[in-house]
Amino acid sequence: MPQYHVAPLDNLVDKFESLQGIGHKSAQRAAYQILNMSKEEAEKFAKAIIEAKEKIHYCAVCCNLTDSEVCEICKNEARDRSVICVVEDPRDVFALEKTNEFNILYHVLHGAISPLSGVGPNELRIKELLARVSDGSVKEVIMATNPTVEGEATAMYISRLLKPLGIKVTRLAYGIPVGGDLEYADEVTLTRAIEGRREL
Amino acid sequence: MPQYHVAPLDNLVDKFESLQGIGHKSAQRAAYQILNMSKEEAEKFAKAIIEAKEKIHYCAVCCNLTDSEVCEICKNEARDRSVICVVEDPRDVFALEKTNEFNILYHVLHGAISPLSGVGPNELRIKELLARVSDGSVKEVIMATNPTVEGEATAMYISRLLKPLGIKVTRLAYGIPVGGDLEYADEVTLTRAIEGRREL
Repeated sequence: MPQYHVAPLDNLVDKFESLQGIGHKSAQRAAYQILNMSKEEAEKFAKAIIEAKEKIHYCAVCCNLTDSEVCEICKNEARDRSVICVVEDPRDVFALEKTNEFNILYHVLHGAISPLSGVGPNELRIKELLARVSDGSVKEVIMATNPTVEGEATAMYISRLLKPLGIKVTRLAYGIPVGGDLEYADEVTLTRAIEGRREL
Repeated sequence: MPQYHVAPLDNLVDKFESLQGIGHKSAQRAAYQILNMSKEEAEKFAKAIIEAKEKIHYCAVCCNLTDSEVCEICKNEARDRSVICVVEDPRDVFALEKTNEFNILYHVLHGAISPLSGVGPNELRIKELLARVSDGSVKEVIMATNPTVEGEATAMYISRLLKPLGIKVTRLAYGIPVGGDLEYADEVTLTRAIEGRREL
């Protein structure tokens, strides 16, 4: 007995399932919800995909996502233009902005150096970073790449390019996450947390 | 400091997040993946939504989802036309078909009677079920509505309509789920499992 299939439904479930973080059951639920929407709502959903794809591109300065030529952060004259925080991914900018603590500029690399995945320095937005610091207005670059082998390697690689230009290059602190549980912290994190201990 | 926003991106995240079973983080990931797709892929995704919505409708016989006038199951002459299994939702048909055990027909109610949610018998596809059994070819109707208060009420309501027509109305067995753990079964399920015990 062949199983029951409705091609356009299978196709829609496949599309949702192709997205990381959405499993088969969630994809099915999502597809059924689309079917239960009004025609207008479904069209709005489809349009949101097309519009996001069409309107969003990289900021001409920092390579973050934006729908204008230069993003709101780079345009903002109140930002401290002497500090650039370098991150791997646009989501990292959103995360750092959520802290509401830092009035600085960003630079998005769109990845990290990873020879295993075939990502070399030329695949990242490093040239654009070097162009930004070339006029001498940038005093410090904070390397906020991920605490992974690739993120480390990228931070090291870029710091070697920037230091000869007389720019201070810093790295995010390692340690135990706030609200975390010591018991569940791995050895490397604990070692770094003790190494980086501060006087109270 | 206002947080950084890109309107078309926020809009797309909102669309994904509006789907049940997709949380904020998954919606964000999904939206970023759309941005990282090629233009063609994103257009295919949008098209899949529009096409599913346009092409899929209810089967003229059983009210299941289909992209033809009558669904594959109702069209299939090899199916036992004397037994109809009544379910609440199209997904229930897919689940039952996956067992590959039953060569029967289905009827999809598209909901269950729920006075609290304002769903009465007229909102369900009960008229269509009565029309199907009116020619006397159907001998048994299996009520496979959910084991909830609403599903129970719906099964009772429909059985009262069908029994006077001389149709055998049955209900799915209650009991412990296969592969489940007795320890985690609730009291009502255990009571039903003991009541429904069978000789070995």
